[in-house]
Amino acid sequence: MSQTSTDRAAVSVLGLGAMGSALAEALLAAGHPTTVWNRSPAKADPLVAMGAVRAATAAEAISVNRLVVVCLLDYRSVHEVLDDVAGKLAGKTLVNLTNGTPGQAEEFARWAAEHGADYLDGGIMAVPPMIATPDAFLLYSGSSGAFDEYRETLDALGESVFLGTEPGQAALHDLSLLSGMYGMIAGILHSFALIGADRAETFAPLLRRWLTTMTAYVDGAAAQITEGDYTLGVVSNLAMQAEGYVNILRVAEEENVTPVLLAPLGPLMQRRVADGYGHEDITGLVELLTNQK
Amino acid sequence: MSQTSTDRAAVSVLGLGAMGSALAEALLAAGHPTTVWNRSPAKADPLVAMGAVRAATAAEAISVNRLVVVCLLDYRSVHEVLDDVAGKLAGKTLVNLTNGTPGQAEEFARWAAEHGADYLDGGIMAVPPMIATPDAFLLYSGSSGAFDEYRETLDALGESVFLGTEPGQAALHDLSLLSGMYGMIAGILHSFALIGADRAETFAPLLRRWLTTMTAYVDGAAAQITEGDYTLGVVSNLAMQAEGYVNILRVAEEENVTPVLLAPLGPLMQRRVADGYGHEDITGLVELLTNQK
Repeated sequence: MSQTSTDRAAVSVLGLGAMGSALAEALLAAGHPTTVWNRSPAKADPLVAMGAVRAATAAEAISVNRLVVVCLLDYRSVHEVLDDVAGKLAGKTLVNLTNGTPGQAEEFARWAAEHGADYLDGGIMAVPPMIATPDAFLLYSGSSGAFDEYRETLDALGESVFLGTEPGQAALHDLSLLSGMYGMIAGILHSFALIGADRAETFAPLLRRWLTTMTAYVDGAAAQITEGDYTLGVVSNLAMQAEGYVNILRVAEEENVTPVLLAPLGPLMQRRVADGYGHEDITGLVELLTNQK
Repeated sequence: MSQTSTDRAAVSVLGLGAMGSALAEALLAAGHPTTVWNRSPAKADPLVAMGAVRAATAAEAISVNRLVVVCLLDYRSVHEVLDDVAGKLAGKTLVNLTNGTPGQAEEFARWAAEHGADYLDGGIMAVPPMIATPDAFLLYSGSSGAFDEYRETLDALGESVFLGTEPGQAALHDLSLLSGMYGMIAGILHSFALIGADRAETFAPLLRRWLTTMTAYVDGAAAQITEGDYTLGVVSNLAMQAEGYVNILRVAEEENVTPVLLAPLGPLMQRRVADGYGHEDITGLVELLTNQK
């Protein structure tokens, strides 16, 4: 016998792009009765074939279940879809996994509260093929009651991490993690440009190993930032790193690679050394990134 | 009884900074008879206490052993130390682990050959405390005979990776790996600036986990670059990523963080999309980094 679904919360999913479809599929696979809606209805076909119920309208999808997962293109789409059905939201729990900024999440949380809905904002730390795999995790913030009630359901999508009741925190953490990733991707692109296509395949395992090892810096940096002491456990101080960085930029020139992605770190390092912090770790540069506050 | 050293190659180490000292200590720990020299002799004291033989001069260190490991501050120091003793290098094997560019390694390989030394250039992918741990690996290029003969000795420092007979390849790979790491560090600094000191400790494990998972991009990028097909296995195409990147930069503004480190990626993404490659993966940006060739 396959999974029984009698004890699983029923869910409606609004938005069936690549991510919304992956979410609905994961919910179905975990045995949740799942109702789906998408503006262009054909996107629902494969999910209906897997056992989902098709809703003809967003209003219908919201009416049939108390738990409503929203995964649309952006907040403009969220408002286009939900403004018309605001009268039906009282007593519902909205879990909004649409990409946006903390400010957009906070504004939407107020809007949902005005219409009587319990609101949980979420950020998906996965690409669609990773959904429901051990690699996926999802960040939530907003209603702790909604999180507690539906945590088991949400765990079907990936590990659930609750970041507190400020609705903007999931988006802030999501975008901060993406920022870290795009820095890494910029570094990866630069390094592949340096190595060239002929050696990319043998270089890749070295790069992946090195980056994985060096993620340990995250823990050291967090401790330094938390303590407000950038000398804590310093191995290679900023003055030494700033000197070595000259070679990083020089080899790019030698190999005819434009250092546009890595260049901005150089002047920041030099400035921080000139300000008298050469004995500290590179982590002190956060002070130069946040000094507009 | 402790390790016997009778079957272990004898080594001389020139340069006892933090890294040179870690190398000498690892060789001693692995049972290699080790002779050490440093310009300021006090740096040798702890190693002598561990069983190292002190050489009074660089010439003496070179004379007593066939295998000479060089780990000095930079290539200027290498020439300052070795130019005077060039006449003693015939028949020796020089393993040069001093930081430098591929061009400097190639120039020095020619110089070593002129003086009859077998030459292996190396790049250390570790900070000193990592030496002789499973996390450390070292890159070598140049004489394959020297690598084959001394591989077991070199393995005492960390896993040995041979990159072929072009002497500049170890430095090129070393600096490319460091470039990738500095991109990642730039992203980490930006993300901590966004999150703020109060939440750094809870954010850190999420960031480390996310970055570690996302190192998988390295393998996908290598396959795309090797095949010359940036659509290979694309999950999130460049047009979508370029759109999402607007949120990355917008949240920095909202949170009063200067996006100086992440900003340069934006225009490159926009330009590549405008050039008609929005359906490809972000990996195609390497074309914009190397188009001066």
